Amino acid sequence: MLALGIDPGTAICGYGFVELTGSRLKALEYGAITTSSKARPQDRLLKIHTELTALLEKYKPDVMGVEQLFFNRNVTTAIPVGQARGVILLTAAQSNTELVERTPLQIKQSVVGYGKATKEQVIYMVKKILNLPTAPHPDDVADALAIAICTTHCINNILWRNR
Amino acid sequence: MLALGIDPGTAICGYGFVELTGSRLKALEYGAITTSSKARPQDRLLKIHTELTALLEKYKPDVMGVEQLFFNRNVTTAIPVGQARGVILLTAAQSNTELVERTPLQIKQSVVGYGKATKEQVIYMVKKILNLPTAPHPDDVADALAIAICTTHCINNILWRNR
Repeated sequence: MLALGIDPGTAICGYGFVELTGSRLKALEYGAITTSSKARPQDRLLKIHTELTALLEKYKPDVMGVEQLFFNRNVTTAIPVGQARGVILLTAAQSNTELVERTPLQIKQSVVGYGKATKEQVIYMVKKILNLPTAPHPDDVADALAIAICTTHCINNILWRNR
Repeated sequence: MLALGIDPGTAICGYGFVELTGSRLKALEYGAITTSSKARPQDRLLKIHTELTALLEKYKPDVMGVEQLFFNRNVTTAIPVGQARGVILLTAAQSNTELVERTPLQIKQSVVGYGKATKEQVIYMVKKILNLPTAPHPDDVADALAIAICTTHCINNILWRNR
């Protein structure tokens, strides 16, 4: 089963494809879609849509996992992040990719085993679980891989319950 | 010149096409794209994208005006509104429609002549300016028409300056 994790953002949109074979997790491909702050907002969203559509067509994941967002503090970034997230959900619907939404707590719980884990702990565990040569960079890519790992666990639990 | 005003929202997305001929403004078409709260978020965004794309293909507006959003208070709605707004900006980019972003203050200034006008004053002036038989309903449609009126003023000012 192939899961795609997405960490939404207008400037940097992290993505990570994680394959689950038996109980083994493997990072198939990961990186970031980046857009220039000098570009118009609509052109930045178009770039995210175009590149994500191409990734979905190339890898055809079984499921896409996206973090569920809550904004208690940084309200100013809520609109641009929400806009990128809207384009990502639309792209999932257009390609008929199943969508799973997970809270930050569920993601940390799933990857580190502790819902209040630090960013450093998440990066450390992502590198370890996926047996990566170096820590994924920038953080958005590590977050996307963490979401993908959490998504494989989530789907596995659903399959287990429905056996 | 034909301007399309959009009031973004996931449940109700107001739209209004306003045509400027000489100094005369006319509402060509207005209404709302609505989505069910029972539908999945990605399917709601897909409906907005599909219906807005069809409207752009049918009327081919010269410009699309969208309100610039600021969230000082209602943070919980920032993400769903941001998501709908992201899909709307994407649709503008995909159809090569020029985009104009206006603040609530600019829109009220343009329609009522007073930046802190009430919602009732905006609805009253929209009905009056466009010579509508009844007040547009729901409020999102009146807001979309207000944005369209403001957008025609904005474009007219640019043309005037560049003569």
